[in-house]
Amino acid sequence: MVESAPVLAAGSAGTVETQYLDLPAPVPLDCGSALYPVRVAYETYGELSPARDNVILVCHALSGDAHAAGTSKAPTDSARDGFGAADSDGTAGQGLGWWDGMIGPGKAFDTDRFFVVSTNLLGGCRGTTGPSSIDPATGAPYGPDFPVVTVADMVRTERAFLDALGIERLAAVAGGSLGGMQALEWAVRYPDQVDAVIAIASTHALHPQGLAWNAIAREAIRRDPAWQSGRYYGTGHGPDAGLGIARMVGHITYLSAPALDQKFARRLQYADDIRYTIDEPEFEVENYLRHQANTFVKRFDANTYLYTSRALTYFDLARGHGSLERALAGVAARTLLIAFSSDWLYPPQASRELAQALRSLGKEVELEVIDAPYGHDCFLLEEARQTPIIRRFLADERTP
Amino acid sequence: MVESAPVLAAGSAGTVETQYLDLPAPVPLDCGSALYPVRVAYETYGELSPARDNVILVCHALSGDAHAAGTSKAPTDSARDGFGAADSDGTAGQGLGWWDGMIGPGKAFDTDRFFVVSTNLLGGCRGTTGPSSIDPATGAPYGPDFPVVTVADMVRTERAFLDALGIERLAAVAGGSLGGMQALEWAVRYPDQVDAVIAIASTHALHPQGLAWNAIAREAIRRDPAWQSGRYYGTGHGPDAGLGIARMVGHITYLSAPALDQKFARRLQYADDIRYTIDEPEFEVENYLRHQANTFVKRFDANTYLYTSRALTYFDLARGHGSLERALAGVAARTLLIAFSSDWLYPPQASRELAQALRSLGKEVELEVIDAPYGHDCFLLEEARQTPIIRRFLADERTP
Repeated sequence: MVESAPVLAAGSAGTVETQYLDLPAPVPLDCGSALYPVRVAYETYGELSPARDNVILVCHALSGDAHAAGTSKAPTDSARDGFGAADSDGTAGQGLGWWDGMIGPGKAFDTDRFFVVSTNLLGGCRGTTGPSSIDPATGAPYGPDFPVVTVADMVRTERAFLDALGIERLAAVAGGSLGGMQALEWAVRYPDQVDAVIAIASTHALHPQGLAWNAIAREAIRRDPAWQSGRYYGTGHGPDAGLGIARMVGHITYLSAPALDQKFARRLQYADDIRYTIDEPEFEVENYLRHQANTFVKRFDANTYLYTSRALTYFDLARGHGSLERALAGVAARTLLIAFSSDWLYPPQASRELAQALRSLGKEVELEVIDAPYGHDCFLLEEARQTPIIRRFLADERTP
Repeated sequence: MVESAPVLAAGSAGTVETQYLDLPAPVPLDCGSALYPVRVAYETYGELSPARDNVILVCHALSGDAHAAGTSKAPTDSARDGFGAADSDGTAGQGLGWWDGMIGPGKAFDTDRFFVVSTNLLGGCRGTTGPSSIDPATGAPYGPDFPVVTVADMVRTERAFLDALGIERLAAVAGGSLGGMQALEWAVRYPDQVDAVIAIASTHALHPQGLAWNAIAREAIRRDPAWQSGRYYGTGHGPDAGLGIARMVGHITYLSAPALDQKFARRLQYADDIRYTIDEPEFEVENYLRHQANTFVKRFDANTYLYTSRALTYFDLARGHGSLERALAGVAARTLLIAFSSDWLYPPQASRELAQALRSLGKEVELEVIDAPYGHDCFLLEEARQTPIIRRFLADERTP
């Protein structure tokens, strides 16, 4: 075990620019078709070792993008406000990556040691091919003609992308929420090519209430007439109303009830009394929700929300294997699972089930349940408490 | 203490018909204006005693109506499917009232003993004056010109309605959720006229997460272009899409996550595998949500939803009093509070705070927290377990 560096002696990944790579061949998809062309947006932090054995792939969540760390050269629409409360707490600086607190020199994913690669996922709207990309068959955006992609398809795309970069093995793959699903899928799909998996605030299969929240969010988009069956591109109006509702639902599921108590209580927006209004926000939490919705629709594509939400509901490691244990039978990577006590969207129980299944197979697995009050958003907010756990776990890795 | 009758020896309140009464005078409102005319839809079960001292007023929740018990002569649109899972469980018979399991001969609210009165609340859409009623000033439906009413306004209307019936005192006032808020408001507003209060799955002030869910539901309606700023009556299309989303959000908050696990798990709608669809329901829980939304919009008015949701978020017994204790200082009624362990929309904690405040004032209060898995819907589903508690509590009442 290597002694970890002090957590707070951590620097910035620096100024970064999102890059783009066109994959050389079609990506085969679970639905039976294949997608071509596929462009992947990505960023890298740190230096690739001569042996190319110090690569960590970081996978983002539903509304994230490739800009995971450092300061963007185009700082206006950082993905960091793509999650829960992180933005409104004022913790996001100008153009900082969504996991900037975790990736950099001396940080959890230490760029003095590792070459960290972050991509926008397949189906995304931030540079990687998705429903808003041009369909070469028509010359117009795919819209609803984009194939329904899965977490496995996202991982296949990441695999093809790393191949194109000349990277064969991963020292680790890591992510939170949907990003953790991708990390788990990597461990199952490419067992010989991943040394370690870090899945945070994630699950092997979302529970029914999580399915329901996602269904409601998608319905809010689909029922907005401006969605136009998904063909809103170029019409001058998209389903901002529905996407805003989806975002509001998301926000409340990302936070815990006690966190909302602490953050807003029942404080009113104006003066000491109510104003008798149906239209206007009256409580602070109402104003907060509207603000979050309005900010989000400016930077995110509604169809990408639909496709990504669908993919994370479909994700079920056991499907097609008969059981979770059988699905995990081939896993060779060491696994670190981190869950948060107050996360009711991705509750610790799923991580316990995963840990139990891996242990029963004799696999190396560590489960850390962090007692923290902020709900699912903890994976973005509780950087200081995740950092020593991740550094220690990665220190066990063969040193590059 | 009177021995309670066996719970299961319970009959039906019989065939009932909703009646209507026009109040003789304007109802003064918290917002400063007054409303006239006001019609109240109501039903009664049992017989009024000669001394008029056996009256129980039952107050309904957000989407209920006056048809609380028995079989309606117009059975097509029972309010019983106005709540959570009760309908889809097949527990609702043809035209049965929403609390039929609780009101009738030998039931919790025993119509062999009590004269039970149920009204549709002010602002409603099921016979009592609300935003879909005709504004005498214009000859058209009020729509957004309907005044923003509060729980206190609902209770003032109930008071005026009972006056018109010649009923001065209540042996008890009872309700669940928003109905419980009305019961509590009765105890504070008319302390000399209420002998007992039964507030079930309710609160003195909804917590911030509850405010948020209600705000999201209202925003879903308001953002639907078919809402037309509330003036959709007679246009041939209303905000069904938005109201459906509001209903879906409601449903999930009425149920607990374990109840959803038990009811749906991750079962797929068709066959054994996913179909790769963004548009169609894939999981059973997704289909359930769509069904609930489609059923609800056929029987409920979107503006009433907005006004009623707003009223229940405004409700805060302590507002204007400085503290909950001061608000409750004048309460003379005995109070029964029932809460359910799995209710995360109206958690037991609020009932504990109420009980503590009443006890600190030396008031007579009983708190029962029922350990049951179905969430907020328990107040409609757990009839068998509420019945002996309520019968015992009411048996302490001076016998009429």
